Amino acid sequence: GKLLVVPMDGSHWFTMRSVVEKLILRGHEVVVVMPEVSWQLGRSLNCTVKTYSTSYTLEDLDREFKAFAHAQWKAQVRSIYSLLMGSYNDIFDLFFSNCRSLFKDKKLVEYLKESSFDAVFLDPFDNCGLIVAKYFSLPSVVFARGILCHYLEEGAQCPAPLSYVPRILLGFSDAMTFKERVRNHIMHLEEHLLCHRFFKNALEIASEILQTPVTEYDLYSHTSIWLLRTDFVLDYPKPVMPNMIFIGGINCHQGKPLPMEFEAYINASGEHGIVVFSLGSMVSEIPEKKAMAIADALGKIPQTVLWRYTGTRPSNLANNTILVKWLPQNDLLGHPMTRAFITHAGSHGVYESICNGVPMVMMPLFGDQMDNAKRMETKGAGVTLNVLEMTSEDLENALKAVINDKSYKENIMRLSSLHKDRPVEPLDLAVFWVEFVMRHKGAPHLRPAAHDLTWYQYHSLDVIGFLLAVVLTVAFITFKCCAYGYRKCLGKKGRVKKAHKSKTH
Amino acid sequence: GKLLVVPMDGSHWFTMRSVVEKLILRGHEVVVVMPEVSWQLGRSLNCTVKTYSTSYTLEDLDREFKAFAHAQWKAQVRSIYSLLMGSYNDIFDLFFSNCRSLFKDKKLVEYLKESSFDAVFLDPFDNCGLIVAKYFSLPSVVFARGILCHYLEEGAQCPAPLSYVPRILLGFSDAMTFKERVRNHIMHLEEHLLCHRFFKNALEIASEILQTPVTEYDLYSHTSIWLLRTDFVLDYPKPVMPNMIFIGGINCHQGKPLPMEFEAYINASGEHGIVVFSLGSMVSEIPEKKAMAIADALGKIPQTVLWRYTGTRPSNLANNTILVKWLPQNDLLGHPMTRAFITHAGSHGVYESICNGVPMVMMPLFGDQMDNAKRMETKGAGVTLNVLEMTSEDLENALKAVINDKSYKENIMRLSSLHKDRPVEPLDLAVFWVEFVMRHKGAPHLRPAAHDLTWYQYHSLDVIGFLLAVVLTVAFITFKCCAYGYRKCLGKKGRVKKAHKSKTH
Repeated sequence: GKLLVVPMDGSHWFTMRSVVEKLILRGHEVVVVMPEVSWQLGRSLNCTVKTYSTSYTLEDLDREFKAFAHAQWKAQVRSIYSLLMGSYNDIFDLFFSNCRSLFKDKKLVEYLKESSFDAVFLDPFDNCGLIVAKYFSLPSVVFARGILCHYLEEGAQCPAPLSYVPRILLGFSDAMTFKERVRNHIMHLEEHLLCHRFFKNALEIASEILQTPVTEYDLYSHTSIWLLRTDFVLDYPKPVMPNMIFIGGINCHQGKPLPMEFEAYINASGEHGIVVFSLGSMVSEIPEKKAMAIADALGKIPQTVLWRYTGTRPSNLANNTILVKWLPQNDLLGHPMTRAFITHAGSHGVYESICNGVPMVMMPLFGDQMDNAKRMETKGAGVTLNVLEMTSEDLENALKAVINDKSYKENIMRLSSLHKDRPVEPLDLAVFWVEFVMRHKGAPHLRPAAHDLTWYQYHSLDVIGFLLAVVLTVAFITFKCCAYGYRKCLGKKGRVKKAHKSKTH
Repeated sequence: GKLLVVPMDGSHWFTMRSVVEKLILRGHEVVVVMPEVSWQLGRSLNCTVKTYSTSYTLEDLDREFKAFAHAQWKAQVRSIYSLLMGSYNDIFDLFFSNCRSLFKDKKLVEYLKESSFDAVFLDPFDNCGLIVAKYFSLPSVVFARGILCHYLEEGAQCPAPLSYVPRILLGFSDAMTFKERVRNHIMHLEEHLLCHRFFKNALEIASEILQTPVTEYDLYSHTSIWLLRTDFVLDYPKPVMPNMIFIGGINCHQGKPLPMEFEAYINASGEHGIVVFSLGSMVSEIPEKKAMAIADALGKIPQTVLWRYTGTRPSNLANNTILVKWLPQNDLLGHPMTRAFITHAGSHGVYESICNGVPMVMMPLFGDQMDNAKRMETKGAGVTLNVLEMTSEDLENALKAVINDKSYKENIMRLSSLHKDRPVEPLDLAVFWVEFVMRHKGAPHLRPAAHDLTWYQYHSLDVIGFLLAVVLTVAFITFKCCAYGYRKCLGKKGRVKKAHKSKTH
């Protein structure tokens, strides 16, 4: 088939790329449309790549992202309001501007029009893939860990009872206290009131391109299949829709032999083994004071710590701590001598930890990281630290707990065996469903009729109103009849009494 | 692993048996517990079969079922009330009595206790499998087309918005009119008010065995995995839960060569081909008048009709209609010369029609048949007739439409290609999940936290009540303050006016 791919930069592309590569291997004609300026998208792909010039440079991108990442060390985003009010939203606007740049490139748009693709395989983060799918009326497959705000529930018409399905960013579990459930409701209200403002620029661009005012629901609601990079070993079980396919752990792969350098570190670590430490590909700087507190704690455990860090070397770095610019994270986690993984709890890292059965110390920073950390914590697979408040001692205790208390290892191994016990591998499942949408021009039989209802019809407010009206009317009439009957009886008794009185006087 | 199987008699066993046989082939130690008296369960199985004596004979079973089946030709069950009030419920009570008989057999109960099974694979229809699972605290896998009343939604804590998810027995589509949505709500109310009375005997037996009062929710809520014999080519898309696995079409299999007798019928049918007619394994008698009307209609089409019927031969049977006691339904439907399938729209028959791409004329009788028929009809794969009101002409027109109007064939072929395009075959998927539950002693990670909430917590009535109270209190205080402030201002103006007045006079 002929597939148009609209990816998202950064770590999102790591796993989407593996699906694209497999589709290419299976003989599909794939065209990837990407911005000229990007961190990860550029690397060679064995298919047609179409780029469009952007309104920003790589330096702009780096600067804005650094500001964004740095801000996470000051205040964590725990509400839509703080997300909206954040002083570092420019990074999002850079991404949102991509689509305007794409559609400015008339030659590219013409090329896409004439290519008669069978489907669009897209990462919805910057909205552009959604806009492209709608513009060319192509069936679409969304590829995401989750979707910000309530647009997944709305776009897929999927119920998410607020009583036990925590909203994102809150870091709640599925067993919420009353107070947390109240907060969960308020967050849901925030989403409905504020999210469209967060996507204001994106929606303006979309409306401009599509030449009609559109909402996020309009963009998401035609999705044929949602490939969601999660499963219910990570996430709490909740209602889903038939066109949601769970491919959590798609980034896991069989450990490869370690480069000599790392083999040597492990051999030198003796019986204590090693700890792997990485805050992901997106976080290159840690505020100095924080980095020193971390370095201090790392020096207090007997394990050798391999710390992927591109920032300035903390002056108090202990001998057991080795700083590296890059490390083969998955392969290291797969090594039997690896005792723990210090991570920001991004979904890729968490799944590598699950797949390799390594307990975690989690320092969530932004996005879904707080939620991933809470889930792993409640499932006994790790300890979460609040990066803003944590002290060196907190980190030291957390590491010693996770390494020495056997329950963490047992829990993560149980999660690992549950996760890897599946009828189809996530990558094969993803490839199957992209091909399914191409073969059948979408998946209309999986589109719920809820899309054709207004919100009050969906919640049956009209029916409940009608039934209530009927019940009240019946009750009223019954009451009136009884009252009338009662008065009648009373009237008769009254006359009988009077007659009786007049007789006895 | 070691698996206990508690099956249900009748057509339910056909497909469950294929899963059991595959599990046996894969080396699992399987013990099937079944009543001594049954229609279909007796046939040899390559595993340990434990039977228990029943309080009824095969004649009782036949008699009660005949009464039940016959009653369907008089009045169709379209509500829980009519199900409850039906004069043929004895058949259900016979089935419900199975569990009392099983637990009376102390030797069998002792055997089951000592066998330390890994899981129970059960058909929930007569409740007994559920009771056995709870009694021996074993993880359970439910195998069913659907579950009567609201016990699937409740047992799995799965939302089913009444605005577009039609309740069973009503024969509604997912695009309901306002009136139908009102009826859907009333049906839901009926379910909550009346269903427990339909299961009264069954629950008494369960409470007696478990020595504690139990509800259907108690019996269903510990289900680890629901293997549901449906999919979203047949059913309308709706919310589902992660522990629901869809294995619709598990009964389909590659067509085998036809016995000579049937090959001959087909060859003799010439260019018109054949029509297959069967009201399923459970319906052996049709009221004579109705049978004659049917025979009359069948005589008016050029195709040869192969009619599986064990009742008295209608006197007006035409030459093109051949009566047989049994026919290889699936293999006949797989033959290219088969033009149409007249069926009662049981799920097995409907899936064989989907798998083989044969349009249908549907005469639903009871249970899920009305709903299956409505679904196939709204998807353009057949025509539904009401057996009570249908005339010979109706059947004739329906047959001619389904055979001659190409759209029916196109629609059923489209459904067929959608249905058969899946990553895993239903039988393999079913076997995988039974083995999963055995390996992991259940699937606790798929159990939603909703089970730990009361109904008002689940619907957030406490949170909404609290937030409303807060809003009203704030509104009230604001109002009071404004009123007070207003009075204060008004008071001042009043004094100023008075002072002004006294000056001017």
